[in-house]
Amino acid sequence: MENEQWTIGGICAAKGFTAGGIHCGLKKKKPDLAIIYSQVPANAAATYTLNAVKAAPLHVSKHHLASGTLQAAIINSGNANACAPDGEENAIAMCKYAADELGIPATEVAVSSTGVIGVSMTPKMDLVKDGVAVLCKSLATGEAASDAAAQAIMTTDLTKKELAMQCTIGGKTVHIGAIAKGSGMIHPNMGTMLCFITTDAAIEKSLLQKALSHTVNYSFNRISVDGDTSTNDFCLIMANGMAGNDEITSENADYAVFLQALTTICEKLARAIAADGEGATHLITCTVANAPCEETATTIARSIIASSLVKSAIFGKDANWGRILCAAGYSGAAFDPKLVTISFASEGGEITVCENGQGLAFDEDLAKKVLTPHEIIIHFNMKQGVATSTCWGCDLTYDYVKINGDYRS
Amino acid sequence: MENEQWTIGGICAAKGFTAGGIHCGLKKKKPDLAIIYSQVPANAAATYTLNAVKAAPLHVSKHHLASGTLQAAIINSGNANACAPDGEENAIAMCKYAADELGIPATEVAVSSTGVIGVSMTPKMDLVKDGVAVLCKSLATGEAASDAAAQAIMTTDLTKKELAMQCTIGGKTVHIGAIAKGSGMIHPNMGTMLCFITTDAAIEKSLLQKALSHTVNYSFNRISVDGDTSTNDFCLIMANGMAGNDEITSENADYAVFLQALTTICEKLARAIAADGEGATHLITCTVANAPCEETATTIARSIIASSLVKSAIFGKDANWGRILCAAGYSGAAFDPKLVTISFASEGGEITVCENGQGLAFDEDLAKKVLTPHEIIIHFNMKQGVATSTCWGCDLTYDYVKINGDYRS
Repeated sequence: MENEQWTIGGICAAKGFTAGGIHCGLKKKKPDLAIIYSQVPANAAATYTLNAVKAAPLHVSKHHLASGTLQAAIINSGNANACAPDGEENAIAMCKYAADELGIPATEVAVSSTGVIGVSMTPKMDLVKDGVAVLCKSLATGEAASDAAAQAIMTTDLTKKELAMQCTIGGKTVHIGAIAKGSGMIHPNMGTMLCFITTDAAIEKSLLQKALSHTVNYSFNRISVDGDTSTNDFCLIMANGMAGNDEITSENADYAVFLQALTTICEKLARAIAADGEGATHLITCTVANAPCEETATTIARSIIASSLVKSAIFGKDANWGRILCAAGYSGAAFDPKLVTISFASEGGEITVCENGQGLAFDEDLAKKVLTPHEIIIHFNMKQGVATSTCWGCDLTYDYVKINGDYRS
Repeated sequence: MENEQWTIGGICAAKGFTAGGIHCGLKKKKPDLAIIYSQVPANAAATYTLNAVKAAPLHVSKHHLASGTLQAAIINSGNANACAPDGEENAIAMCKYAADELGIPATEVAVSSTGVIGVSMTPKMDLVKDGVAVLCKSLATGEAASDAAAQAIMTTDLTKKELAMQCTIGGKTVHIGAIAKGSGMIHPNMGTMLCFITTDAAIEKSLLQKALSHTVNYSFNRISVDGDTSTNDFCLIMANGMAGNDEITSENADYAVFLQALTTICEKLARAIAADGEGATHLITCTVANAPCEETATTIARSIIASSLVKSAIFGKDANWGRILCAAGYSGAAFDPKLVTISFASEGGEITVCENGQGLAFDEDLAKKVLTPHEIIIHFNMKQGVATSTCWGCDLTYDYVKINGDYRS
């Protein structure tokens, strides 16, 4: 959209937000504690993992978010605080440490953790308390502060995920900034996807939740690295209204602009998480087009990007369309395979390998060339309607097995 | 059960069944064409892949099975005849070649294929026709004939899957024999599970289907190698009544004996398929106990054995119970994680690693010893009821990625 522009500052791009990140001792050396703070109470909304086993910080944050406002979020890496003794007590304590330093109620603080599961944080809570005190004193705005926070929430991520965007709403410049982590495995346990978003837009609480839920459904819920849904997934947005726009209270044109900017940011972060999947060498984008409805398109696209066989084939630069049609076939969606056309595309070119459900004779050399660049697009044309959906994943490599199979040492 | 005994003869163990297997030219060198024949028409039942994309031979066999009787089955490896031009015509032709040689109607012949998908069989149908003629002339009973058939349906399977059992029904000795293939990948496409069962038991058609469906649900439907459901899966049973028992026409004690023997055979074949998963170094058996209902137990057990993270951990001999609880959590089953106890067992010993949803301090050396033998048992004790379910899978290894990622060459 024209009314959108990338900008700098990450999580601190929006007015009134400061942040920080430090090493407190949960990890050996790398940064492991981050904070995000708003000068004024912000409307807040969140989405949580659908895993029946939820980490303690998610329960605490959900409780604190019941009021619909927050002023800060405290996040640690190095320990997921999931299935661990004293989980809720320690999550509540983290909120309290930050609240006391910042002079705000503990219920205005969200908490989130990522790392090893099943290990109690209790022996290290003194380190966390000292760390929070240092963090709160070092709160700053600008690029460096956002960078420190983004670094401190990483686990085995290879790339930092940090973005900011500005757009005009009601004649005012509104900023949306975000940091995220994901798809790196924390040794020895499950990967976790976290995303924190700040905005100075003024937007009513329930609309903020609606915008976030919609956006997450079209971004983070459309990626898969290994089909394993974490116990700690968390996406939080805080909107402090300091941009001075008239508060968005209905799904009007202003809401549309805000939603579009939020979606652009989250889609880019989701793609970055998929591309940074453990051991990945390719980002796989699967677009299912001309489906009878969006749900069918999404079901099929998800099944394709989650297939171990499709993922292995892309790793091997093998134009193995049979596995793609097969994954669509077992997705649970009803469709006529005899109408389906499948092609691969990338910076290396484009090649159609299956037409009307049957294989085409194709140039193997061209296929290999198409499947060599980093991003591989799978076009699955159903010719059974007008709906479209896109999902993102990554290839399955020796390194995935290595990262997740290595014995703890 | 006492009234069950392993025996020899495989698919030819049951009276009146002959078989054979040869190389006809679909593969470069290895056997690729098998036949199973009954002296007299047999009641027949089958189960088919649930994949919406079904290979042509399945459509043809389903049509031929509509009468509830069969006298022969012709099976090829080296080409799946799925999503390929002239698929149905070629599948029908295979039945006709066999029928003409055997002097029976083509509708009394089932056909099944496994191998590459998307490649037309047309250029090789002359080889198939000549092969069928040779096969029908070489039909024999005994160990060697069953072995030849079992070899000819293998793709990249490392082990031959062939079993036979005898039991007493109504005072008569009844035999059940079977050959199966599965979990090897056929280059360059998807793995396929096939199973052919013969029995001389006399059993009414609808009960035969009921017994097969029940058995498949408790055996082949409880294994997973990579979560990819093939387009060609097929399980066929032929019962020719030549044991001379009074025909089983109700779910009486005779039916119970037959069902038990059939289940024993299929469970053993299913375990063999899981153990022979591509690149596998471990057979993983997951037992979910004390569940509120069997469906919940099965949903959780399936989710655990299908998890890439659990599979990678077993490969790495890592007692990573967090991943197991996590996989249960996203299975979709409702349960209280705070009651769950998880332990590992094998010939190397037993170790409990999680009690009431929280990690236990455990001896890492013992854990490694428990996770070293070939078969690893995961006990997932829900303490939320009395139902139990067991599923089987295998670990995820470098070789899985290698087998499925290698570019066609």
